[in-house]
This record gives sequence, structure tokens and C-alpha cells, in this order.
Amino acid sequence: MPELRRDPIVGRWVIISSERSRRPTDFKTILQAQNKGRSPFAPGNEAETPPEVFALRPPDTLPDTPGWTLRVIPNKYPALKPDISLSSESNDLYESISGSGFHEVIVETPDGNTGLGELSDAELSALLGVFRDRIRALKKDQRIKYILIFKNHGQAAGATLSHPHSQLIGLPVVPHQVSMEVEGARHYYHRLHRCVFCDIIRRETREEHRMVLNNDDFTALMPYAARVPYETWIMPREHASHFEDLPDLALGQLAVMLKTIVKKINSALDKPPFNLVLHTAPVQEAAMPHFHWHFELLPRTGTVAGFEWGSGCYINSTSPETAAQNLRAVVV
Amino acid sequence: MPELRRDPIVGRWVIISSERSRRPTDFKTILQAQNKGRSPFAPGNEAETPPEVFALRPPDTLPDTPGWTLRVIPNKYPALKPDISLSSESNDLYESISGSGFHEVIVETPDGNTGLGELSDAELSALLGVFRDRIRALKKDQRIKYILIFKNHGQAAGATLSHPHSQLIGLPVVPHQVSMEVEGARHYYHRLHRCVFCDIIRRETREEHRMVLNNDDFTALMPYAARVPYETWIMPREHASHFEDLPDLALGQLAVMLKTIVKKINSALDKPPFNLVLHTAPVQEAAMPHFHWHFELLPRTGTVAGFEWGSGCYINSTSPETAAQNLRAVVV
Repeated sequence: MPELRRDPIVGRWVIISSERSRRPTDFKTILQAQNKGRSPFAPGNEAETPPEVFALRPPDTLPDTPGWTLRVIPNKYPALKPDISLSSESNDLYESISGSGFHEVIVETPDGNTGLGELSDAELSALLGVFRDRIRALKKDQRIKYILIFKNHGQAAGATLSHPHSQLIGLPVVPHQVSMEVEGARHYYHRLHRCVFCDIIRRETREEHRMVLNNDDFTALMPYAARVPYETWIMPREHASHFEDLPDLALGQLAVMLKTIVKKINSALDKPPFNLVLHTAPVQEAAMPHFHWHFELLPRTGTVAGFEWGSGCYINSTSPETAAQNLRAVVV
Repeated sequence: MPELRRDPIVGRWVIISSERSRRPTDFKTILQAQNKGRSPFAPGNEAETPPEVFALRPPDTLPDTPGWTLRVIPNKYPALKPDISLSSESNDLYESISGSGFHEVIVETPDGNTGLGELSDAELSALLGVFRDRIRALKKDQRIKYILIFKNHGQAAGATLSHPHSQLIGLPVVPHQVSMEVEGARHYYHRLHRCVFCDIIRRETREEHRMVLNNDDFTALMPYAARVPYETWIMPREHASHFEDLPDLALGQLAVMLKTIVKKINSALDKPPFNLVLHTAPVQEAAMPHFHWHFELLPRTGTVAGFEWGSGCYINSTSPETAAQNLRAVVV
């Protein structure tokens, strides 16, 4: 049974999930299987996955049969499980929480070869809408304190199946990286009475060195202290802490922005492996004046090595100013 | 010119170092070159590296010629450089520091095929002594606030040269991961008036579930919230915050402990790639009652993917209790 444990020194949570060790992770084997048409995410293979919890499909089709354009399924090797009741244990040193939570896979398209940058605007809008709606649905479970949506694209970014998919993990705690961000932003707000993300957008819009793209509602920029070459953040221009509050009308513009950035990065770096993560506010908290949701897109052209593991400090060989200039110049 | 930048939200430092982009990172090409006997770290190829700053060599041999058993050289593609004068810039949002620092490579042995577990006790003692002595030497530079020693073994752990080597980076700031640990330990100390690491050693010695190995002076155990399968920490049993204070007499026992752990992990996981990092107290600070130096050994059997990047939370598929039991059972 999975369990969350808190490190007694830094407070970082880890998930100890021995069932995940059954998961096939030999990429070559999986790739070979997929090349033989045996992708568990392909239409016709619905029986190879747990039953779908949501799908975009014509009304005359049955669940877990072909016809869908997008499909949400529980992860077959879940890190956390909804049917575990929430309990915790602690002593003066150690603290653990039972592994109650959700781990879902969002199969983005029936076509195993259509990357994020190749989806139509309508398909990508629908995908982003499903991200939003899954958060809306799962946050009703009061045990869930945080929902992280992320995508691993390519082997070096941790993908074990090449069929395009995103994942969602709903956690009974707010994970370390997010609570550091929320607390850092809260500290900035208390000091200056402004959202640090809004300040970043204002400054980068004025100075332009790290700006990649703007439209009416969204902005894409490189962070000042980018961890990896071409790290790009996509944020709403108007302050908003919770992604799940995004109105339908904004989905189209966000889709166009995300697609353009992915295409530019694919062009500049020759289709690199990448991770995409959504940082939104903890789901059970009310709107926050200090926190601002955003996507972080991290191309994975290097390896996280001993220095990064040991220091939390990254060595970035391309300044965000150079990377932003290059991305601005890419015509897609 | 390299530069350190501070993230305005979480306070994490990154090194922007465009010269590092010239570094060859195509592992296959490098491996092929090395297989042809062209390792820049091999005896006879001393001219291919910057001049050595230290070496263990017979007194009748000249610097940068063969005969050495261990060699310390500046990294040819340094993340930070000693000849940059320390300066900083900041405004209300962004803060940067010039890239003053040290980036050294410790070539552990003349033999490109002798791994850490195959060094003799005397060779490994000497290596650990050099780690200590390089810290002692470089901390005299008052600009240096932290010195991280680490080792990348294997491609998946970030090694770009297979010839056994460790690295040292001396930084003008205390990196995020370390300051979180030091602050977390300080908080624990203020609350309970005890070192959290000493408490961990006491408890794990009593309960034994996560204990791997003990000798008179050192202990090797798996942390309660291990991030990766078989993550192992090696620590002095007696409280000590600064690794550079380690007496000569302790080097032998530490060498035997480290070698035994590496051999056990090599046996249990079939010679996995791994990172080894030394966490010691910030070098300009006096002895700390709350912080306790330790090595962290992290086998790299998985990939850091979107979930880990986005959450700082790790999914570990092998509980530290199971891993410790397995390692205890390995006879080396």
C-alpha cells in the first residue's frame, strides 16, 4: 500500500510505492511493443487499460471502445490510490500519511504519432479544458490538497510510453516545490503588496529581453533564473491563482500560445524531450492574491547530475536572454 | 562570464554559464574517443587538461607528467572561475552575483577502469583525504561560502567522461538544497535541543530496519524518506558539522565504509549509475551543533520526470526497509 513520508530535516514528502516497481520501464522493450501496434493507449486496446473515468467521444459510442478523441484513465501502476482511507502517523522524528490520492493518465489523441505541437487548436483547447475539469472534479474530494498535472515527452524526460499523454496526480499534501513557491510568493506579497508573478510579467513586458510571446490573455517568457536552456513559463496576464477557474473563453488563446511555444522549441532544439508542469494554487485554498498559476516547460537536453542533486543549484549553459531571442526569431 | 542568479520566488540560485555549452556532452562520441585510448584523464595525456593544482605523485616526478596516483585539475569547462572578482547586483526583483568560484576535477586513479569499489583501502583513504584537504585549502578564499564535492558515475548519472573522477565546486553562495537542510536542522535543534542527524542515528541503530552497516566511527543507513531506491547516507557517529575537520585517523574507517557500501550496491543493483554528494556545513561558519556532515549516495535507476520536477516529491518504488534488508544480506 503506498505511503507518503516526510523527510524530518527538510520537510520534503516522498511517495513510497512498491507497486510502481512492477511497472515496465525498459524503454526499448516498450517501444518495440508499440511499434508492433501494441500501444495500450491505441484505439482498440482499451481493454489493456483500467476503465476510463472520462472521455471525449461521440454519444453513440460505448465507454472503453474506440471512437474517442481523448481518454482519461486511472494509471495502471498508480503512485496513489483513491480507495485508501486517509490516515496519518507521526512521532517526534517521522511522519507518514497513507497513500490516498489519484493518479490518472490523459491520453491526448487516438493517434500515437501526434505530438502536442501537432494537435489542432480545437484538440488542444479540449485537452486544456479536460485538465481544468479533472481538477474541478477531483478537488471535491476533501482529502486532496494538491493536484499536479504534468507531461513527460520523450525517454530522457521520463516517458515510458511514447503515445502522447499527460498525467495527473492528486495528493493529500501540498508538495515541497509548490509550497516553497507559494510561501516565497506570499513573502514577496507581504513585503511589497504585489504578486511577484505579476511584477515579473510587467518587468519582462517592459524590458523584452526574456519575453517570447504575448497575446491578449497570456504571456510566455523565460524566467530570470532559468534552470535549463529554453525553460519557458506560460502565464495568464491577468492575476489568477487557480487554473481550474479558467473560463471557457480563454482556452483557445491558451491553446494557441502553448502550441506556438512547443513548435518554436521543437524547431529551435530539434524536437527535444521535455517536461511540462502546471503550477496552480493548492486546490482547497481560496483565491490567493500572491500566487499566480503558470505552466513551466522544461526541455531536457542535459542530465540532472550530482551537483544539481546535491545543491539544488542548476548550471544552465544558455542564458534565458539568448534563448528568448532565438525563440522569438523562430517562425512557426 | 559566468553569473549566479537568484530566483525571485523561491530563492534558488542557478549558474548561467554559457561557456559550459562548449563542453562535449555526446556520450557516445566521448566513449568512442576514450576507447581509442584518448581519455584526457589517462597518464600521458596530462597536456590535454589544465595544469594540475595538486597531485599525489612520487617526489622525483614533475607536475603534469605521468607517475601520479591521484590528480586534481581545474575543470576545462568550469561553471565558476577563481579569477573573476566578486560583485553583486540587485533590484527589488532580481539579484545576481558574478561567477567567482572554483570548479575542480579529482582524477581518482590513473587506471580508467578502476571504480570506487575497486580502489584499495589506502587509495580510497587518500582520495577522502584529498576531498578534505581541498576544502581546507579553498575555504581560505573568503569569497567562497560553500564547497560541494560530488561524483557522477555512469552516463545516466551525468558523467561525460568514464575515467573515474569526482568534482568540487566552490560557490560564493550557500546553495538552496544545503541551506534548506541547515535551516531544517536548525529548526529541529531549536525545538528539541538535539541534532536531528544524531537523533536519526540513535533511532535507526535501535530499530535496525533502515540500518545497513556500522563501524566504530561511521554509520550507513537508508533515510526514512528515501527519494530513490537504495539511497544511502554515510555519517560519522559522533556529531561533526564540518567534513574538513575529519582527523587523519578516521579516514581509513570512512574509506572501508564507503567502499563496502559501493560494493554492496554494485552487487544488489548490478553496477548502477550513481551520484555521490557530500553535504557539509557552509565553510565560513563555525562548528554547528545542529548540522551533521554526511555523504548521500543516490543510485540512478530511474529518470527525474515531470512529477519530480514539478512537485519536488519523489516516487520511490523500493521502501528503504526492503532496500536496507537487501543490502545487509549482500556479502562483499
